[in-house]
Amino acid sequence: MQAPAHRIPHRQALADWQATHFLWEVKGKVATITLNRPEKKNPLTFESYAELGDLFRALAFDTSIKAVVVTGAGGNFCAGGDVFEIIEPLTGRDMPGLLQFTRMTGELVKAMRACPQPIISAIDGICVGAGAIIAMASDLRVGTAKTKVAFLFNKVGLAGCDMGACAILPRIIGQGRASELLYTGRMMGGEEGHAWGFFNRLAAPEAVLAEATALAGEIADGPTFANSITKRMLHMEWTMSVDEAIEAEAMAQAICMDTKDFRRAFEAFAAKTKPVFEGD
Amino acid sequence: MQAPAHRIPHRQALADWQATHFLWEVKGKVATITLNRPEKKNPLTFESYAELGDLFRALAFDTSIKAVVVTGAGGNFCAGGDVFEIIEPLTGRDMPGLLQFTRMTGELVKAMRACPQPIISAIDGICVGAGAIIAMASDLRVGTAKTKVAFLFNKVGLAGCDMGACAILPRIIGQGRASELLYTGRMMGGEEGHAWGFFNRLAAPEAVLAEATALAGEIADGPTFANSITKRMLHMEWTMSVDEAIEAEAMAQAICMDTKDFRRAFEAFAAKTKPVFEGD
Amino acid sequence: MQAPAHRIPHRQALADWQATHFLWEVKGKVATITLNRPEKKNPLTFESYAELGDLFRALAFDTSIKAVVVTGAGGNFCAGGDVFEIIEPLTGRDMPGLLQFTRMTGELVKAMRACPQPIISAIDGICVGAGAIIAMASDLRVGTAKTKVAFLFNKVGLAGCDMGACAILPRIIGQGRASELLYTGRMMGGEEGHAWGFFNRLAAPEAVLAEATALAGEIADGPTFANSITKRMLHMEWTMSVDEAIEAEAMAQAICMDTKDFRRAFEAFAAKTKPVFEGD
Repeated sequence: MQAPAHRIPHRQALADWQATHFLWEVKGKVATITLNRPEKKNPLTFESYAELGDLFRALAFDTSIKAVVVTGAGGNFCAGGDVFEIIEPLTGRDMPGLLQFTRMTGELVKAMRACPQPIISAIDGICVGAGAIIAMASDLRVGTAKTKVAFLFNKVGLAGCDMGACAILPRIIGQGRASELLYTGRMMGGEEGHAWGFFNRLAAPEAVLAEATALAGEIADGPTFANSITKRMLHMEWTMSVDEAIEAEAMAQAICMDTKDFRRAFEAFAAKTKPVFEGD
Repeated sequence: MQAPAHRIPHRQALADWQATHFLWEVKGKVATITLNRPEKKNPLTFESYAELGDLFRALAFDTSIKAVVVTGAGGNFCAGGDVFEIIEPLTGRDMPGLLQFTRMTGELVKAMRACPQPIISAIDGICVGAGAIIAMASDLRVGTAKTKVAFLFNKVGLAGCDMGACAILPRIIGQGRASELLYTGRMMGGEEGHAWGFFNRLAAPEAVLAEATALAGEIADGPTFANSITKRMLHMEWTMSVDEAIEAEAMAQAICMDTKDFRRAFEAFAAKTKPVFEGD
Repeated sequence: MQAPAHRIPHRQALADWQATHFLWEVKGKVATITLNRPEKKNPLTFESYAELGDLFRALAFDTSIKAVVVTGAGGNFCAGGDVFEIIEPLTGRDMPGLLQFTRMTGELVKAMRACPQPIISAIDGICVGAGAIIAMASDLRVGTAKTKVAFLFNKVGLAGCDMGACAILPRIIGQGRASELLYTGRMMGGEEGHAWGFFNRLAAPEAVLAEATALAGEIADGPTFANSITKRMLHMEWTMSVDEAIEAEAMAQAICMDTKDFRRAFEAFAAKTKPVFEGD
């Protein structure tokens, strides 16, 4: 089908790269993705889906970027798949064509979970459909009192099982609350999402990006190799028994104890200073 | 052992069926089950367990019913297994006889999870033992401020692992809270259950059935084929890895994109009208 | 490496045993472990890790102890692994030596989950690192308003995946909140931990041990054979499908229906008295 209208450098640094379908900025160890079609509340298109997925895959190879912030321009996060640019063409596709689309969207979540950097979403205003999925697939979420999140797939005639929602959302907010959001497509407000553990914290709309960026910076200043192991294990252990998970963590943590950051932390403690981690 | 004193039509419409051990009413796309022995707070018997399980299995074949409400008569939901009609006979059974019983009760939960219709429980007053399990095994729960839920199996000398409670309850309210309820058998009140995500919402006692019925109606007016896929995936993905779940959802959602309801939603959006879903 | 400087009786009663690296007291059916180096906030050492793990394994053979309380002396729970007694030596170990350590610490959690007695932690003050893990690996937790819990592994250059944290913590407080605690190492306060379901209840600092002991006593007076089955199933079902879990519970509960405690409960009910359970 369509050839992707973007080019992501593979196995290279991404600091100077220019994204085609969204804004991309790297400052120090933190990269920021800004969905940037504010006049339409930042909907996704075939092209932006593909470019985002490719970017998160490429992030595995840029070891200078240690955390990623995702946000939207103009007071909204993301309106999901554009009705005329995505939904209308899908209504004419055959089954292989439909599966190509759902696999491409799922690939975005797989790539977000596979990239070693923790992802922090800064979410104000509308956050629906695929936008809600991007928020859900992030590691941490900062919202505002006026954020409106909706997994509104059933409003457009679809199932709630989109891009991993039936697996991931119940683990964040519980099976009962996730069931309601997925069966009804109703809005979850900012305060409600905070009380339910969807949002890690709320900020004022004008401060939400700064707050998420500060949190990303704090994490990026931590032991980032170890953080990447935390991220991997947080999802890999879903299908392990308790004993399997503990053995897997024994191996994973032994690897981290072999890093210089572990030694740096001890030496700083002994010297009564603050450790400076370098991610190795 | 006992022959079931009821007859459920198989592969037939259930609108005109008469239940033997509870009330059964179908209005439009919503069916309502009312446990109806109010003088004893609606306990279950061997016969009502079996009839309920058979009914939920039969619901897979009635494509005109799109959501199910479960409630109890007389201001209580369900007092669980009747002490003299169930517990006393069990104390005299041998192991095959005991396993026959626990499998029959488990079959009720399996049937509730396997039927394609979302199940909404309207829960006032006492909701204990097998009653708490029926609430837990529902997709959504509407309670009242005076609802009292107790997984009181350990009060009758049994383990908390009854009919799936050790698997399902922690996914709704978290492992720590579920552990307390299952080890102590203590009551969980309405407000507490709402704060914990067990209840999706609370209503006044006189409004709880109407509220649950309205919610069922809203869901039944949605894309019901897609809803049945949501229900299936919400539980099938428990034992999948993140990547497996995303691939499974890509396939499941592609199927839903091949339905007429998906096209109806787009056409309604383009025409600036509200979609009328038909479940195909 | 080091030989364990303690001796645990195997397949024997533990009532008269004397622990070497912590306090151990058995009163009736409830045993209490007190981490007891209050001047350093009760840190763990190689020796106390090993002795604790061996103790929890030995508890499988003491059928007179029915519940275990874990607490710390002097207003704090546990400061985690001692920096100079544990972390400094680890910085000099090779990979087999590191893995030996992480497996030994993981073995403590495996032993806590494998012992048949429910474990209730009474947690005041500092509860960090391995201390937070011991709290997490308990079945129930009683905290205070001034309890400070931190999974601070990333503060010492390590990953959050320590001793099962990436598997167990998300199931208690949800994936989003667990991710924040594990990526940042930040403190979770008492009120916050209670709102999130980490603490089952809060008590005044001077009452927290009595409260946990009373809860342990209540559970120990219940059907303790059945309780041990509840504990086993609460974790064994993590990796089962819904239908598998229900079948496993049918078998487990049938076993419990074959106990004398089940008959005692019925007979007490029929006689309108309170059942006296004996754990068989």
